Amino acid sequence: MGILLQSVELNGQATDIHIEGNRIKRIFRADPVRADLQSGYLEQADLQSATSLQIIDCQGKAVIPGFINMHTHAAMTLFRGIGDDMPLMPWLEEKIWPNEARLTYEDIYWGAKLACVEMLRSGTTTFFDMYHQLDATAQAVEESGLRAVLSEACFDRFDPALTEWNKKNIMQRFGVESPYSERIRYAPGPHAIYTVSGELFRWMADFAKERDLLIHTHLAETEHEVKQCRERFGTTPVRYLHQLGILSPRLVLAHVLYVDEDEIRILADNGVNAVHNPASNMKLGSGYRFKFLEMRDAGITVALGTDGCSSSNNLDMIEAMKLASLLGKSWRKDPEALTCHEVFDAATQAGADILGIPSGRIEEGCLADLCLIDLKSPAFTPNHHFISNLVYSANGSCVDTVICDGRIVMRDKKAPGEDEIMERAAFAASKLVSSS
Amino acid sequence: MGILLQSVELNGQATDIHIEGNRIKRIFRADPVRADLQSGYLEQADLQSATSLQIIDCQGKAVIPGFINMHTHAAMTLFRGIGDDMPLMPWLEEKIWPNEARLTYEDIYWGAKLACVEMLRSGTTTFFDMYHQLDATAQAVEESGLRAVLSEACFDRFDPALTEWNKKNIMQRFGVESPYSERIRYAPGPHAIYTVSGELFRWMADFAKERDLLIHTHLAETEHEVKQCRERFGTTPVRYLHQLGILSPRLVLAHVLYVDEDEIRILADNGVNAVHNPASNMKLGSGYRFKFLEMRDAGITVALGTDGCSSSNNLDMIEAMKLASLLGKSWRKDPEALTCHEVFDAATQAGADILGIPSGRIEEGCLADLCLIDLKSPAFTPNHHFISNLVYSANGSCVDTVICDGRIVMRDKKAPGEDEIMERAAFAASKLVSSS
Repeated sequence: MGILLQSVELNGQATDIHIEGNRIKRIFRADPVRADLQSGYLEQADLQSATSLQIIDCQGKAVIPGFINMHTHAAMTLFRGIGDDMPLMPWLEEKIWPNEARLTYEDIYWGAKLACVEMLRSGTTTFFDMYHQLDATAQAVEESGLRAVLSEACFDRFDPALTEWNKKNIMQRFGVESPYSERIRYAPGPHAIYTVSGELFRWMADFAKERDLLIHTHLAETEHEVKQCRERFGTTPVRYLHQLGILSPRLVLAHVLYVDEDEIRILADNGVNAVHNPASNMKLGSGYRFKFLEMRDAGITVALGTDGCSSSNNLDMIEAMKLASLLGKSWRKDPEALTCHEVFDAATQAGADILGIPSGRIEEGCLADLCLIDLKSPAFTPNHHFISNLVYSANGSCVDTVICDGRIVMRDKKAPGEDEIMERAAFAASKLVSSS
Repeated sequence: MGILLQSVELNGQATDIHIEGNRIKRIFRADPVRADLQSGYLEQADLQSATSLQIIDCQGKAVIPGFINMHTHAAMTLFRGIGDDMPLMPWLEEKIWPNEARLTYEDIYWGAKLACVEMLRSGTTTFFDMYHQLDATAQAVEESGLRAVLSEACFDRFDPALTEWNKKNIMQRFGVESPYSERIRYAPGPHAIYTVSGELFRWMADFAKERDLLIHTHLAETEHEVKQCRERFGTTPVRYLHQLGILSPRLVLAHVLYVDEDEIRILADNGVNAVHNPASNMKLGSGYRFKFLEMRDAGITVALGTDGCSSSNNLDMIEAMKLASLLGKSWRKDPEALTCHEVFDAATQAGADILGIPSGRIEEGCLADLCLIDLKSPAFTPNHHFISNLVYSANGSCVDTVICDGRIVMRDKKAPGEDEIMERAAFAASKLVSSS
């Protein structure tokens, strides 16, 4: 029963990996002097079950944990290439908001389907999303076989009526049983401190505590936000959330570009998590001095994300790793900073730790959320150092096969149904732009 | 005779492109109301020649000029993944120089072959190289069908005997007729001001003037170089070259990170060219404030390069465009800076202008150095803005077909002989590392 990845490269060594149900059952390291790996593992395995194994020959391929993209707005694939090279406010006001207001459930569904295709093709198995009409995204994720924690983006714009409407909405969502599989979970998603009242933030923090949920928000993304926060609340973004009393290990902060030493300490003391989105921060000109090492050394779990395609403009976690490393080295003028191993961990283990899932690593008992990497390309030639090649030389196109929750969800670099999905998403997007 | 690219997307419009010899003969824009493009062009063309046309159906593909990678050390593909995340000097002393000293002609040949495969697969048709044993690279380029201007890296380390030896070497190279096609040209390549004497720099500038050659060098790459230059020559790198009297439109400077306003004026006044290598500068922690806009606005032609795979760690010009744009936006905190169009021009036209070849653009009479881009991928879905998608969303894997000098040099995303080349290069590299 299950899947056998045969002769796959793991840490530079040919390895057999036996997947049963949704877990990694056995990692079998061949004796390096024995060439005949297959009989090596299968001899040990129960013969009865061996006959029903789906055996995948993995020669020329390496295995890695599936990437965990810790900050996305999946359906914004529809906005790819609308309003690049623009300042934030005209971009939001002229390009994003008028079009978002017109998105139907179906548009969001096809946008999220396209995001799932893109994530599969670049090796992401789990993502942490925030968007509108959550069920449209949930349906797309369910069908793709991926794993996701989804947030409905909440805005009350400091209007008490909207505060109450949002509370009702969230309670309603959690009042009914989820029609989806366990791969899909929810998390409240207050958009940001400049769009959500302290009252709603506090209420969501209590709600999340009660039900042991994560909270997904944007924080300290731009200098403008910090300035506005000081004007409105008399303090900086992190200190404001601290005053609200909502800092906890359930809180996941996207961006966190503008924090001082004391704020890093406050976040660490309260177990708060941070997500670095280098492409988005660079492209929007939000800033570049993300304090990856300082936060991590203080004890904060720092994960990696792409942000939505309206700002990043893709969902490629391999590119995100290279950007994070190169950006961190460049402003510090330190080539030793943010090594390939550090950003790889941020793109895998860190996300799993924040989401509380046994994934992001290849160990017996862990979830079988894995990617096979095609080593037959210039990016992996020579292959002195696999993780270096993956981070610094490759891009998402090296991903050959994706396994999520023990199921093969992509093979041979093509996601199931991708041609139709691309066509339908392009059609949804074309309507949007023409009507804007 | 020739090649007909039929129904290819050019600036968002279906177009026929007729290539004859090594040039673009005709660009035929179909009447948008006429669906039957083929007869549209072929009716106009001479029937006799139409029968011997190689017709390529380009539905679902866009055409762009081949990229011009203006700073490479091609054979350093062999060093990919050796010594990442290290400071410059230990990296050079422990990893690069001991291994370089052992490189045979054959090693360099296979390293350069691998570089050509990688460049083909990511859409580069021309590159400006500097390395040792130039003929090994020339042979690889000749076989690949690419176009290149090659420099033998010169070092005299301020030793008069080596100065004379280098002069003799260069005269020898230019004293014999090149055994290669016109796709391959030479340019003197003084390595840098800290490894080459003023005497040799001056001699090479005179030599280049006499024969109308380009000169390829590294300049103002690190703060350390500037400091050393001040100590040794009492001034900054640009001013030092100016004092030597060698600034001219023949000079191509890689990096140029450390220049002030006056130096930009001096470079512009003398028609000197600059090459930005964002990946290398970021990864080595050399610096990040490349003054792309200031230089260009002063009138300097600013092109784009990847640098060698020991520092960048790939030769993907699409990645280089994204990095250049994002880096420029990020340190300026200006999302409007370095638009996708600006970096696209730097990756195509600017290099052609510096090298003095009629390429880097798609116009009748220009060299047929072209790439077909596969639009059937998430990166180009939706395709609101093709250049934005190319720069911000895609990577080198979107290149389907490469035409150089009027010949198809790659089709269907696979370079001719790539499997053997990757194997041989990996073998050459494995010897190097194990013996270091």
